[in-house]
Amino acid sequence: MKKIYLDYAATTPVDKRVVKAMEPFFSEKFGNTMSLHYFGQETKLALEQSRKTIADLINAEPNEIIFTASATESNNLAFKGIVFGNKSKGNHIIISSIEHSCIVESAKWLQSQGFKVTKLPVDKYGLVNPRDIEKAITKKTVLVSVMHASNEIGTVEPIAKIGEICRKKGIYFHTDASQSFGKIPIDVKKMNIDLLTASSHKMYGPKGVALLYIRNGVKIEPILHGGGQENGQRSSTVNIPAIVGFAKAVKICKKEMTKENKRLSKLRDKLIKSILKIKNSHLNGHPQKRLANNANFWFDFIEGESLVMHLDLKGIACSTGSACSSFKLEPSYVLLATGLKPHQAHGSLRVSLGRFTTEKEINQLIKVLPKIVKHIRQISPYGKEN
Amino acid sequence: MKKIYLDYAATTPVDKRVVKAMEPFFSEKFGNTMSLHYFGQETKLALEQSRKTIADLINAEPNEIIFTASATESNNLAFKGIVFGNKSKGNHIIISSIEHSCIVESAKWLQSQGFKVTKLPVDKYGLVNPRDIEKAITKKTVLVSVMHASNEIGTVEPIAKIGEICRKKGIYFHTDASQSFGKIPIDVKKMNIDLLTASSHKMYGPKGVALLYIRNGVKIEPILHGGGQENGQRSSTVNIPAIVGFAKAVKICKKEMTKENKRLSKLRDKLIKSILKIKNSHLNGHPQKRLANNANFWFDFIEGESLVMHLDLKGIACSTGSACSSFKLEPSYVLLATGLKPHQAHGSLRVSLGRFTTEKEINQLIKVLPKIVKHIRQISPYGKEN
Repeated sequence: MKKIYLDYAATTPVDKRVVKAMEPFFSEKFGNTMSLHYFGQETKLALEQSRKTIADLINAEPNEIIFTASATESNNLAFKGIVFGNKSKGNHIIISSIEHSCIVESAKWLQSQGFKVTKLPVDKYGLVNPRDIEKAITKKTVLVSVMHASNEIGTVEPIAKIGEICRKKGIYFHTDASQSFGKIPIDVKKMNIDLLTASSHKMYGPKGVALLYIRNGVKIEPILHGGGQENGQRSSTVNIPAIVGFAKAVKICKKEMTKENKRLSKLRDKLIKSILKIKNSHLNGHPQKRLANNANFWFDFIEGESLVMHLDLKGIACSTGSACSSFKLEPSYVLLATGLKPHQAHGSLRVSLGRFTTEKEINQLIKVLPKIVKHIRQISPYGKEN
Repeated sequence: MKKIYLDYAATTPVDKRVVKAMEPFFSEKFGNTMSLHYFGQETKLALEQSRKTIADLINAEPNEIIFTASATESNNLAFKGIVFGNKSKGNHIIISSIEHSCIVESAKWLQSQGFKVTKLPVDKYGLVNPRDIEKAITKKTVLVSVMHASNEIGTVEPIAKIGEICRKKGIYFHTDASQSFGKIPIDVKKMNIDLLTASSHKMYGPKGVALLYIRNGVKIEPILHGGGQENGQRSSTVNIPAIVGFAKAVKICKKEMTKENKRLSKLRDKLIKSILKIKNSHLNGHPQKRLANNANFWFDFIEGESLVMHLDLKGIACSTGSACSSFKLEPSYVLLATGLKPHQAHGSLRVSLGRFTTEKEINQLIKVLPKIVKHIRQISPYGKEN
């Protein structure tokens, strides 16, 4: 039985074209970018070419792109770096209540260090209201962070509007674009973005590399101190094969973005339409303002874990909550923020599509899922009569 | 002209056997280790197998190994994590004066946050005297960090003795083993090591992965907050291909260590003997207690940069200072700590050998270097009469 992977929001396979681009950088072009000799200069050149390719995608300057090892690191750097680097300006940050756990946990840690954090509510679709941000800003606010698109429910936030507000007030605006980078057009200048996080392994590049866009002029302190790589903002030997792969992944996404979005939206909509025919099933996230590859449901009288397990037995990989919280037993705080009750949030299923998803695979899920839902409800003490 | 790489201390090519082991984990076995389904469980298993392989090399328990993205990150985590996690115990740390820049800079940052740092002197060979540590320890000391082997001059420090002292006094002992891991036998239990840093790309594994060994019972705070991977001590999506590669690299090093050390020591000694025949040339580091792959010289009336450039023109890659400080114009603080004057430290050349170094390559360097030294001295205002 060929396995069906529908968890592209958790991670993606590396595109074979990307692997091919990386290959020479393991054993042949392997120099340390800080070395003065040929081997170092060769990889230094590849590094700067990659930086330019990636910067171009979001209309940034190459020197505004700092490579890190993960979106988690980028988000930690954005938060701790801005807050510690701008202590004299204030001690207050604003985040939405549906940010990724690495933002939530960074904010929590900053709270433990004496900083203040405001968590903005979202509506039932997971949308932040820009007016709430305007109201939450105080004289002590140094940073606003709202994700571009939700990793869990796929909702796309009005970040251009939020960027405009922050720029007017002179407050740094950070957006976690881990799920949207390479999928939705982004222009950091037009959107007034000061800091942006993007991840390679969410868009068919390798794991172990991500970026933080830091607008020129933004004052930030490093979190990794050392040899002064990445313009002193992120010390560590440069992970050149991964960065070259990231750049190749960006090139492919840029070229295929429009066509791929159409194809995936069509598959997604077919899936949503079919699944919502199941009795007592509901869509999470916004019906239109959502990622082309995301579908997220909740089912009454069902445990999400149980759904994922049963689908896995049928060879289909989906998730409940987000990958990073799969092992926690708490209901998703993202779904709770959209107004679901804990027992409702427990019954969620995220289906995330990607480059290698076929219509045949979606048809298979459409065929299998209703039977599984019915089966689980039959054996559940809450679901029997439904 | 085939290039000759003699800068293995800066970084190593990935062994082809390692690349082969990594390959399936890019596009086939690519799941997120936090996912509940088959794809996630498959990589989770590979992660834990890799952890065990790597832990075994240094006689650690698997759950004592935390994967990070670089030795810089591991060292930053060790320093900030221990100091912030043990504030109630004290505010003083002790390091040697020849630590890697990521230790020096982490310590400097901690100083800026109000912590106290003692830098221990070294002798002319770069050796720390364990008795100096005993004397430097106060009631407020929480951490002692002395590297296992110098990245620059190759000197191997008496870490077992230092570990013994620290354990007796109940103070955490960290060692940066980036240059020795996989090259010299290490037993964290026998050597009383509480924390140890090791890097994959210094021993023929991929860049972008490293580890911090944290002895069970050691209290540490994370520096990357998020999804709670690596036992909550280092959040980020797990970089599975790199970790699998790291483990394969460890397996190879373990098997070949004894034989390889003999082979390299012989080549190194031949090189040292030949180069020291050059007039006014000197060896840096300890004549016996040094890494099998390290030779480091200084030449009167010579700029190291100039040496590296001229060698590069002849197709031979070496370094002056360490890779991470190649672009800085200051003389190496490591060499200054061994007692060299600034103008002497400027004239240093590090030759680091490795798995793919042949006797023919060493012979070529022996042939070329005396001519280059002579040439540079002839055109130098200081060197003319020598």
